[in-house]
Amino acid sequence: MSMKQIFDEIILKTKGPGLYNFTKQTEIFVKENKFINGILNLNILHTSASLIIQENADPDVLYDLNNFFNKLVPMNTKLYRHTAEGDDDMPAHIKSALTNSHLTLSVKDNNIILGTWQGLYLFEHRKENQIRKISHHFVGQ
Amino acid sequence: MSMKQIFDEIILKTKGPGLYNFTKQTEIFVKENKFINGILNLNILHTSASLIIQENADPDVLYDLNNFFNKLVPMNTKLYRHTAEGDDDMPAHIKSALTNSHLTLSVKDNNIILGTWQGLYLFEHRKENQIRKISHHFVGQ
Amino acid sequence: MSMKQIFDEIILKTKGPGLYNFTKQTEIFVKENKFINGILNLNILHTSASLIIQENADPDVLYDLNNFFNKLVPMNTKLYRHTAEGDDDMPAHIKSALTNSHLTLSVKDNNIILGTWQGLYLFEHRKENQIRKISHHFVGQ
Repeated sequence: MSMKQIFDEIILKTKGPGLYNFTKQTEIFVKENKFINGILNLNILHTSASLIIQENADPDVLYDLNNFFNKLVPMNTKLYRHTAEGDDDMPAHIKSALTNSHLTLSVKDNNIILGTWQGLYLFEHRKENQIRKISHHFVGQ
Repeated sequence: MSMKQIFDEIILKTKGPGLYNFTKQTEIFVKENKFINGILNLNILHTSASLIIQENADPDVLYDLNNFFNKLVPMNTKLYRHTAEGDDDMPAHIKSALTNSHLTLSVKDNNIILGTWQGLYLFEHRKENQIRKISHHFVGQ
Repeated sequence: MSMKQIFDEIILKTKGPGLYNFTKQTEIFVKENKFINGILNLNILHTSASLIIQENADPDVLYDLNNFFNKLVPMNTKLYRHTAEGDDDMPAHIKSALTNSHLTLSVKDNNIILGTWQGLYLFEHRKENQIRKISHHFVGQ
């Protein structure tokens, strides 16, 4: 079996904390390159936003997720030493540590293997607008 | 080096919250297919159960883990908007976000690289009986 | 494209809870083996220490991270059943579950794909000195 490797970057603009669905962009990367079978490795190139797979149906799930993490990791500068970049910066690093910086997906028959209710999300933890890069790396046929 | 790719699904029946060891099933997948060296990518196809590597020796570790997550993410509908599917559903999504939806393992000399005390676990977060699918994808020799 | 697979183990000696940067060691593994493009899969062979990608600039971030996890998962034997190995053992398992046992990195043009501020860290959760093994597995060109 002859293997190929393709690298790309998906750029997402975020406007405050919450979950941003980027499943479509990653699917387009898979379809346009006509990947059949292989490993698709995603890495976010930042430490104050993260990647998770979550339910793609009810927006309340995304609201509750963001709300839970905000309560668990308060934006209170009295709790942290690293406060120079704002009250949301250290909580952002902690929330990233509690979730994921990478997702390793499988591609089969030109489709990403995902459950019916699963979507790919960038989890933004900073308050200001951000431009986020997600490295995409395919190894396969 | 000639590479091959094999896909399979392991099905687990769960009976309430807790950790279910599926190391044996994954080892059988590796042995029966005579995989020598390669990447073994596991993805759970659900957002209310997750995958983790944990200690395989003392059952109290599994009890304490489940207990910690239950306290950290209470089954209390007053805390969440997404409550239509029961008091355990939104906590299940949060616990999944706090753990993992995938595990990427290495196979060497027909063995999964794991520490002596490490086992592969499905972490069930729902109360009712469930049928869970874990995608298995091998790329290698 | 001809693919190769190389396995190695990086050993880290830890002296108590906290984050240990091992980016350099992993970069040396990539440089010395002249890997061009591929997947680099890292697995820690223990269940009381974990792997995360975090900020490599301000040491206060590492202090705050460790401090947050210590507060979230108290070393208090009254909270757990599994206490025979010390008050830090069960919290270590929980902190490992909350973070990661593996990291899957992408290598492009002989460099690990990481953001400017990202470093690779072993997160030690035990109090006593430990010798930790991180499996390194490269698949690619």
